[in-house]
Amino acid sequence: MKQLHFDSDYMEGAHPEIIKKLAKINFDKIVGYGTDEYCKSAARKIREAFECPNAGVHFLVGGTQTNKVVIASFLRPYEAVIAADTGHIATHESGAIENSGHKVITLPNDNAKLKASAVLEYMKDFEEHCNPTHTTIPAMVYISQPTETGTLYSLEELKALRAVCDAYDLKFFVDGARLGYAFAAPTNDIMMKDLAELADVFYIGGTKIGALFGEAVVIKDPEKIRYFRTPIKQNGALLAKGWLLGVQFDVLFTDQLYLNISKNAIDRAMELKQGLLNKGYTFYCESFTNQQFVILPDEKLNDFNQHVTSTFWEKVDDTHTAIRLVTSWATTSDEIEQLLSLL
Amino acid sequence: MKQLHFDSDYMEGAHPEIIKKLAKINFDKIVGYGTDEYCKSAARKIREAFECPNAGVHFLVGGTQTNKVVIASFLRPYEAVIAADTGHIATHESGAIENSGHKVITLPNDNAKLKASAVLEYMKDFEEHCNPTHTTIPAMVYISQPTETGTLYSLEELKALRAVCDAYDLKFFVDGARLGYAFAAPTNDIMMKDLAELADVFYIGGTKIGALFGEAVVIKDPEKIRYFRTPIKQNGALLAKGWLLGVQFDVLFTDQLYLNISKNAIDRAMELKQGLLNKGYTFYCESFTNQQFVILPDEKLNDFNQHVTSTFWEKVDDTHTAIRLVTSWATTSDEIEQLLSLL
Amino acid sequence: MKQLHFDSDYMEGAHPEIIKKLAKINFDKIVGYGTDEYCKSAARKIREAFECPNAGVHFLVGGTQTNKVVIASFLRPYEAVIAADTGHIATHESGAIENSGHKVITLPNDNAKLKASAVLEYMKDFEEHCNPTHTTIPAMVYISQPTETGTLYSLEELKALRAVCDAYDLKFFVDGARLGYAFAAPTNDIMMKDLAELADVFYIGGTKIGALFGEAVVIKDPEKIRYFRTPIKQNGALLAKGWLLGVQFDVLFTDQLYLNISKNAIDRAMELKQGLLNKGYTFYCESFTNQQFVILPDEKLNDFNQHVTSTFWEKVDDTHTAIRLVTSWATTSDEIEQLLSLL
Amino acid sequence: MKQLHFDSDYMEGAHPEIIKKLAKINFDKIVGYGTDEYCKSAARKIREAFECPNAGVHFLVGGTQTNKVVIASFLRPYEAVIAADTGHIATHESGAIENSGHKVITLPNDNAKLKASAVLEYMKDFEEHCNPTHTTIPAMVYISQPTETGTLYSLEELKALRAVCDAYDLKFFVDGARLGYAFAAPTNDIMMKDLAELADVFYIGGTKIGALFGEAVVIKDPEKIRYFRTPIKQNGALLAKGWLLGVQFDVLFTDQLYLNISKNAIDRAMELKQGLLNKGYTFYCESFTNQQFVILPDEKLNDFNQHVTSTFWEKVDDTHTAIRLVTSWATTSDEIEQLLSLL
Repeated sequence: MKQLHFDSDYMEGAHPEIIKKLAKINFDKIVGYGTDEYCKSAARKIREAFECPNAGVHFLVGGTQTNKVVIASFLRPYEAVIAADTGHIATHESGAIENSGHKVITLPNDNAKLKASAVLEYMKDFEEHCNPTHTTIPAMVYISQPTETGTLYSLEELKALRAVCDAYDLKFFVDGARLGYAFAAPTNDIMMKDLAELADVFYIGGTKIGALFGEAVVIKDPEKIRYFRTPIKQNGALLAKGWLLGVQFDVLFTDQLYLNISKNAIDRAMELKQGLLNKGYTFYCESFTNQQFVILPDEKLNDFNQHVTSTFWEKVDDTHTAIRLVTSWATTSDEIEQLLSLL
Repeated sequence: MKQLHFDSDYMEGAHPEIIKKLAKINFDKIVGYGTDEYCKSAARKIREAFECPNAGVHFLVGGTQTNKVVIASFLRPYEAVIAADTGHIATHESGAIENSGHKVITLPNDNAKLKASAVLEYMKDFEEHCNPTHTTIPAMVYISQPTETGTLYSLEELKALRAVCDAYDLKFFVDGARLGYAFAAPTNDIMMKDLAELADVFYIGGTKIGALFGEAVVIKDPEKIRYFRTPIKQNGALLAKGWLLGVQFDVLFTDQLYLNISKNAIDRAMELKQGLLNKGYTFYCESFTNQQFVILPDEKLNDFNQHVTSTFWEKVDDTHTAIRLVTSWATTSDEIEQLLSLL
Repeated sequence: MKQLHFDSDYMEGAHPEIIKKLAKINFDKIVGYGTDEYCKSAARKIREAFECPNAGVHFLVGGTQTNKVVIASFLRPYEAVIAADTGHIATHESGAIENSGHKVITLPNDNAKLKASAVLEYMKDFEEHCNPTHTTIPAMVYISQPTETGTLYSLEELKALRAVCDAYDLKFFVDGARLGYAFAAPTNDIMMKDLAELADVFYIGGTKIGALFGEAVVIKDPEKIRYFRTPIKQNGALLAKGWLLGVQFDVLFTDQLYLNISKNAIDRAMELKQGLLNKGYTFYCESFTNQQFVILPDEKLNDFNQHVTSTFWEKVDDTHTAIRLVTSWATTSDEIEQLLSLL
Repeated sequence: MKQLHFDSDYMEGAHPEIIKKLAKINFDKIVGYGTDEYCKSAARKIREAFECPNAGVHFLVGGTQTNKVVIASFLRPYEAVIAADTGHIATHESGAIENSGHKVITLPNDNAKLKASAVLEYMKDFEEHCNPTHTTIPAMVYISQPTETGTLYSLEELKALRAVCDAYDLKFFVDGARLGYAFAAPTNDIMMKDLAELADVFYIGGTKIGALFGEAVVIKDPEKIRYFRTPIKQNGALLAKGWLLGVQFDVLFTDQLYLNISKNAIDRAMELKQGLLNKGYTFYCESFTNQQFVILPDEKLNDFNQHVTSTFWEKVDDTHTAIRLVTSWATTSDEIEQLLSLL
């Protein structure tokens, strides 16, 4: 039996339409640094999809890079960003945000989510007891949709965060490295235009959903960061062949390809989830997106690991371990079946 | 007649072998962040080509990014890098180096080159008259091979720079964004192993020579920067699908493809140069690489610009303008002929 | 009755000997930037007092500044510093450390102390489960002696931290903004030379102990940071009239003045503590240094606040509040008596 | 004969009134971090003197520190500051500005001054030929009044710079480390209120004019940098005993002490200048402030250096050297006479 791979959603290349397109235009000569027609077209399609005709759209290469450029561009040097303690910028980016000079203020997560109530409490306490001379000024709220453990913000939760941001003059930034997988989730109640209305800035992940690489940043009020392309360049995030990004997002946002292939990952994840439930397994947390965190008895794990790559998550007790299984736009039902047959 | 494009060497996609390979392995599931077999194989081939069996090899996405990560990793915060005033880090990187906290000390260029004598004079003056408390400490020499105007360092010049670096404890960093075009130039007298011996760190440009994107950093003594992958990640330069870089460099360093396609750019550039000389044109500076700087009468320029994209370089006098014409690994003799027929 | 002030130990000017000396030499013309004879003499006396004849000694102006310069100079950009979550660099320095590019990794405190066991556990986990590419590299341990709540590290605790630092190649940095008050505490078992032996770098606070301002940094192996004066200047921390610092530390380290006046603060604090105990008050935490954290019934607090300035620390329960009372080198027994008479 | 010292204007302590005041209030207990009554009073007097009732006034310790905090607070990370190539931030601050992430764009000086025409030309060229994606965005103009060689901007020159700043949306920052010596110069035609009207931010140097240390920053529109105290703290520039700064500036701005003692330095400098002219000496550049740059025959220099400390400036020819002689608020006519008697 062939080795199965469920350790991440960035293991395949790109959707075949993208590969085809790249091959087709390979010898066209295209102007550099994202000033080409593909980027313009992709930006137009994204503005249409999210119903934000005045938004600024920029294409970057990867997630950490995008988080760093956005945060560094929106904040003044003495301002900080608030995140859940499980937030990607707080845990898995090698101090990229701090490296740009900004403190990440971490608040306890609730199922990997940052609750509006937690931010509110922090801001109240900040205003009452903190001396803004001796502490950094919280100026931005960062969340991931879906979160790092696959949970989802509801529309109500998003609106509550927006309200706190409005009350305390905080920017609202949504990391959408897996954004498509949120929109495709059965429990999702947020529409694309909701996100564009509620967030000051968010990005649409391509790396994990159908592209070779690439993240599309959407800025609600582009006048606020007049020269956003400059920090992109300054952070080494401006691709000479920017059209590589434009082409990919242009394909992904044609005929709803992005949503359709996201849906595949979710459908496969739900098959996996149901199959595991049927076999009596329990879960570390409940997820309706493409990351499933199942608890396995350690005695099964050794054998399982011979055939499947996955991610160790946590020792649950002396004899059980939670592991992460990730589906992607490219996962097949056949692979799910094979996986289930091992358990 | 079709529009001709000679404005840069990053206008095409990738060498067809690369596109073919990417298409072929598109659905393979490959481990992330550059820990895959393609990256290992590419690193091995690069070490062999440059005869530096102990070197560290890392793959990054673009040039500015690579310059920033290398310089920030090698220098302490109070140290500065010396470059020619025409050096890419001093002129076209949006203050990327300063953004990482380091001053770029610029010295007058000699045909876009930084001469060892200029560095020596600066260092002598620094030791005699400067107060290292009140000035940054020069700690690295940065050059580009070939330079920003296509000129070349000779082996003797490189050795002279190395000697100054040794005398004053400076690191020696060579930006090779167009490195292949240097090795393929008819006047080049530097062997690949020379560069690996003389530089503390250099990189091999893929973006401008056959790859979709990608730069391969070669570090002579990897023990000195034990955690080099961390600043790569911290600067948002670590590709999730790092194998995209590994595959490309693996193809480029198989059967000397990198050198062979570099040679095509040079051959075309020499055809162009000879053709222009035959027609009586003069040049802004003499170049034996893929960038040619020709002086055109302004009266011809308007018409020329209708058919050819190129880069304005400088007004030479009231009636003449220097423009930059760039060939690439993909330029054809046919395109050169068409270009010449317009002049 | 005159208002009493117990809110901090930096409310008075300087020890009269310092004021006298400054007045006396006011019109002497003294060379700048800390290259004067007073700085040399003060450094010599500090090396003698701490029995570290080869140490480097530098004078800076304030605590946050010193923490920032030391940490930024010792760490590479991708390295982080470990501190207790109550550590000054983590809570009251406006993100100064992050502003210099470094993450502060916070571990739970034990009575405001960072325990060696906590660092050990973190480092073990880091080595086993963390991917040093995706997280910053822990490279320094930061503690304050005494801590922010006046507790003290014992010699054993200090040695245990040193051992963990040795095991994991971490620098050991001791913030001594109130260092004298530690040495003068009745429960202290650390000798000055112990600190100089165990820490890679520490500083001796003058601002809170007898000087107008000033902190003396002691670096065990000055060769490691060859140009330490440069980052001092680069961070705007180099006083033009550096001799102001030299003079103050020269006076403080003559005839053990620093220790003697530190002892006054402790003696007054112990009078205060005993007086409060006699009156039946309880304490938020036990301290043998110059910061006492007493719990008052809220009904008394209002009246108390009319006559005494102190620092609100925490609501202990619905009817009680912990406040901080701080003595200094200049506090008199008379002031303690007056304070006690109010309770 | 006693050694004479003319190497700088920061060799003495403080004006006796300041020393007297510090001694007098030494045991008063004063609230910290610049929130005291002395700081408020000093700010009020400065606002009155400069006729800028709405300005924000903050007190910092030294010049490099002030330049760094101001520039880092006013600029976004991708913006740069324009200075003369002789500007203090470009030459003598150890890369402090670059360390905060910003490029210093240097333009050729005219007698150490940055001419409006040079800035205009640069900005025109920037708008016409530069690609703001690939270069930093010029966003601030920095000048020193008087300049590093003692020359003065006229009111007309200041207005011309203001006009260019208005035309291109640049902030205008005036480094006044020796500001009093400009106002006291016989050729000065700028009134204090002119400066406050024309600059967006400037500072009043105390370190070199009568204070032990201290610089007072004046911000025209304090709403633009709402939390300016936070970056002061973040950069380690907030003095715990901030009242030390308040007291000094309060004394200096009482009964025009600052201007009166500045005038002493100028009067002495003019005596020195006239005396040297009478003896037939020539000057490296003409200065009407407290720095005089005289050219001496090398044969005299050796003997001169036995009796007088001064600053080597430049070898003028094979047999002559320019040296800098600096007077201060504390220089006496007697010292000038002694100096002249040596030449």
